[in-house]
Amino acid sequence: MDNRTVLTDYVRRMTAALMMADVKTVVISPGSRSTPLAYAFASTKGLDVYMQVDERSAAYFALGLAKASGNPVVLLCTSGTAASNYHPAITEAYYARIPLIVITADRPHELREVGAPQAIDQIRMYGKHVKYSVDFPLAENNPDIEDFIDRHISRALSVATTAPRGPVHLNVPFREPLLIDFNRETPKMTFKKRFKSVDSLDASTAQQISQLLATSEKGFIIAGEMPIGFDKAAFWNFAKALEWPVLCDPLSNLRTEVPEQCIALCIDHYDALLKSDAFKEKVVPDTVIRFGAQPVAKPLSLYLKKVRPATVIAVDESPEFRDSLGVVTHHIQTSFETVMKIIVDKPKTSYTELWTMANEAASAITNKYEGVAGDEGIFAKTLFEHLPTESDLVSGSSMPIRDVDTFFRKTDKDITIFANRGTNGIDGVVSTAFGIQTARKRPTWLLIGDLSFLHDVNGLIVTRFHEADLTIVIINNDGGGIFSYLPQADAGNHFEELFGTPTGLTFGHIAAMYDAQYAAIHTPEEFGMELDKAKEKPVRIIEVFTNRQANVKAHRDLWKQITDRLDRNE
Amino acid sequence: MDNRTVLTDYVRRMTAALMMADVKTVVISPGSRSTPLAYAFASTKGLDVYMQVDERSAAYFALGLAKASGNPVVLLCTSGTAASNYHPAITEAYYARIPLIVITADRPHELREVGAPQAIDQIRMYGKHVKYSVDFPLAENNPDIEDFIDRHISRALSVATTAPRGPVHLNVPFREPLLIDFNRETPKMTFKKRFKSVDSLDASTAQQISQLLATSEKGFIIAGEMPIGFDKAAFWNFAKALEWPVLCDPLSNLRTEVPEQCIALCIDHYDALLKSDAFKEKVVPDTVIRFGAQPVAKPLSLYLKKVRPATVIAVDESPEFRDSLGVVTHHIQTSFETVMKIIVDKPKTSYTELWTMANEAASAITNKYEGVAGDEGIFAKTLFEHLPTESDLVSGSSMPIRDVDTFFRKTDKDITIFANRGTNGIDGVVSTAFGIQTARKRPTWLLIGDLSFLHDVNGLIVTRFHEADLTIVIINNDGGGIFSYLPQADAGNHFEELFGTPTGLTFGHIAAMYDAQYAAIHTPEEFGMELDKAKEKPVRIIEVFTNRQANVKAHRDLWKQITDRLDRNE
Repeated sequence: MDNRTVLTDYVRRMTAALMMADVKTVVISPGSRSTPLAYAFASTKGLDVYMQVDERSAAYFALGLAKASGNPVVLLCTSGTAASNYHPAITEAYYARIPLIVITADRPHELREVGAPQAIDQIRMYGKHVKYSVDFPLAENNPDIEDFIDRHISRALSVATTAPRGPVHLNVPFREPLLIDFNRETPKMTFKKRFKSVDSLDASTAQQISQLLATSEKGFIIAGEMPIGFDKAAFWNFAKALEWPVLCDPLSNLRTEVPEQCIALCIDHYDALLKSDAFKEKVVPDTVIRFGAQPVAKPLSLYLKKVRPATVIAVDESPEFRDSLGVVTHHIQTSFETVMKIIVDKPKTSYTELWTMANEAASAITNKYEGVAGDEGIFAKTLFEHLPTESDLVSGSSMPIRDVDTFFRKTDKDITIFANRGTNGIDGVVSTAFGIQTARKRPTWLLIGDLSFLHDVNGLIVTRFHEADLTIVIINNDGGGIFSYLPQADAGNHFEELFGTPTGLTFGHIAAMYDAQYAAIHTPEEFGMELDKAKEKPVRIIEVFTNRQANVKAHRDLWKQITDRLDRNE
Repeated sequence: MDNRTVLTDYVRRMTAALMMADVKTVVISPGSRSTPLAYAFASTKGLDVYMQVDERSAAYFALGLAKASGNPVVLLCTSGTAASNYHPAITEAYYARIPLIVITADRPHELREVGAPQAIDQIRMYGKHVKYSVDFPLAENNPDIEDFIDRHISRALSVATTAPRGPVHLNVPFREPLLIDFNRETPKMTFKKRFKSVDSLDASTAQQISQLLATSEKGFIIAGEMPIGFDKAAFWNFAKALEWPVLCDPLSNLRTEVPEQCIALCIDHYDALLKSDAFKEKVVPDTVIRFGAQPVAKPLSLYLKKVRPATVIAVDESPEFRDSLGVVTHHIQTSFETVMKIIVDKPKTSYTELWTMANEAASAITNKYEGVAGDEGIFAKTLFEHLPTESDLVSGSSMPIRDVDTFFRKTDKDITIFANRGTNGIDGVVSTAFGIQTARKRPTWLLIGDLSFLHDVNGLIVTRFHEADLTIVIINNDGGGIFSYLPQADAGNHFEELFGTPTGLTFGHIAAMYDAQYAAIHTPEEFGMELDKAKEKPVRIIEVFTNRQANVKAHRDLWKQITDRLDRNE
């Protein structure tokens, strides 16, 4: 066999093994060393191939695709710093538990650590931020190597998709020449299929858990970020049987499509409620059960840390359960679905009523919220009221996700909310949104701050190669809005210089550069009208100008109204 | 002592230790967890503090500052993916041997790996791409901890600045509250000073090396990338004594300020010369001595690999000497200056004449080069002819550095040329250029391709916070120009999709966004006129539209003219 045939068989085999393991999507950044695999992917039917020239954005785009689809997504780049640019999204994928299959093309051994161009030490270069990393052998006419390829691809995909899911890294060296034979058929694989066990709890364990819940007098459920496609009906059955209030983080996606009979149980205002001392005293729980990641709302964290309920159960399929508060007393290591099968029959208690009534009181105030000039909350509220059913919302970190928490109210609309909460970075959000939209093909809205938009402005490059359908609402408060809530804001010294960091930039130019529809908005009325307009271009950028100081004040005023009302009710 | 006082002393001590180790410059990206150090840096006289909100660009900006100044530069960011965004520039710094002091703020132990926001495993997160990584203790009122801080900062700086120089990583956890006491004085350090040995060769070693060179009949010197501030006069003394031709990579900066009596020895056209079979046969060397990294020119590498001279000496202060060709026969592990002190007295041979005459013949052809429509070389040539003395040129990777190699001819002008050649990435180049200009404060020109400019468009953010003086010449050939030189270009299948990747983007919008001067250029005449115009704004963007196919053809035609001429001369 000549070298080209050997190389062709190698990359065709890899491609076939990836597809056998349910890979349907590949995101490629251009480069030379990765040529053989890029060719194999591009010439394989049934694989969707996307291009993005900025590898940092490419990796977040892949993250969005994987997050929204639930399927592993392959990334491919050339050797050198191209691979280093993947690191931010890989870090997010690791903590957000997203299966990314990161393939970095590498130089062969004779060109490593000898000063060759674009050659860096890529072996285990993502350290602890991938679940598995393997340095592949060169293509070779050797059955042992063929067997290795089949099995290591399968193994890597199994690792990536086994709980807790996450990124894996395949470092694949290629020796020149890099061209393949497009006419050659895929070789026959020697590995056939993998089967996987299902997850359950034995009767005695289920009984113990049931007992814990049944004997509780004052309990609530916390629903943090849930994976896409999780069984909402099963969840509400579980909650309804317990008759416990459910504190629904916006990323639980339990605030949308809420079944009629559970609407009262859905507590979507706990962030504001738990700012009231009177309310907090009234609702001290003895038992809490949490599904999913820790919620966005800081008051809830502070509250749990302070009252330390006798029983705090974390349900997490990972042994590394998440508990930054140090309050968890029981950990159930299994899938959410397994726990939700445990039905505990309990009558509704007056404890649940306390939550329901307070939530309604807070809602009444929030519903009437009109904001003040420069405030951001009113724009978030207006946006959410305008979102049609069967659409998706992607939220930036920092202020936007907090405004989603405050203003996105429970609804029967079919809307799914996404955000990068593995590490809460402001980076890569634009690309993540494009990835989500590309995977789901629904009208998608991104709510994002100006610094976060600017950070990943290159996310827009993907629109030059592929269809997109995204409305980007940029809240431009000229700098780092969230820092205004921190003690630093009141310390005076160096605040604008180190934290505010106003760039003075506006984004009409970016809209023009990428041929996007654009509107500059200053009032909620203008904003409402703009949202009512038909979308004329695949990408629409609505830039809303706000003011960091006014925004802080408006939010604090709203929370004060709610706490005053709850305190009076005492 | 209260917590705030302890924290203040801790960060003040760190700052003082950094300054004692010659740190003068800090680049900060905004964030909360890094607050105590950000405050300490911003409130310390004698430290230059720069802000950049995109951490990837911030790190490349710091790289440019360190590269141009020769001094270590500190980077500071908050916890989470902010730190991951540093990875590309750290990789480049490692292979380019640039001392970056990377400080990542971290969460304290109780918030690590428990699902806390913006908490990732930062310990040794840059793996093999830093020379040293240390996880600092929390601030504490404890003399052992104080001693640790003083010494570990000093140690880290020593490591970073000891050959081969490179990046080091300090991971520094902070516990809330994060405010410091601005009125508190810097505590007294317990570590006083570090002394450092100088580098020399013993007489017998020097004698052996001298002998190797003196007994050679056909020898040449290769000057690859040299560190800024290296002693050019000593180098030319060494070369003049040997009377050997010096193949000067543009990044050796030996093509500029060439002393009159050495001008004939300075071979700046070897890339073209070594494309001629006749010439290659005539000049087969027996001895080669190389200073600095491997040159850009591929024909030189191919030639050395083919002829395998009996003696190939690499001078490299690192034990990990660079030799991707596997041809080095002797390695001198010491500084360039030490070797240049070895004076070998030899008469000029006819071998040297062969090089000098061929170089002149090639120059005569290149000097008359007028290009064709769509060609990029003529724009590079025009730019270099216009560069004033006492200015700096930064080159992008890929095509620009190759055009610098071909068209930047030896000159007595004081111009310094920079490029990121540690890993040859197209990323971070805009930021690197701003860093270089900021450190050197001379008029600076950046020659860069469209994809590379787009990749680091966020490099421009730094101009919103600090003064800048940069002319950016973007060669817009709408995609990846260098791939047109590879075999992939002729393979047909999927070429534009995977390699050309035309974005169709132009950059007038970016100029408008950042309030930069802008010109769109289509002909060399227009370009010359634009270069003659006065600069009206701190940042000027000149976008030159070219064509990838025409460019390849024009370059190949020029090289053919030169090889034809050399082949005829045989």
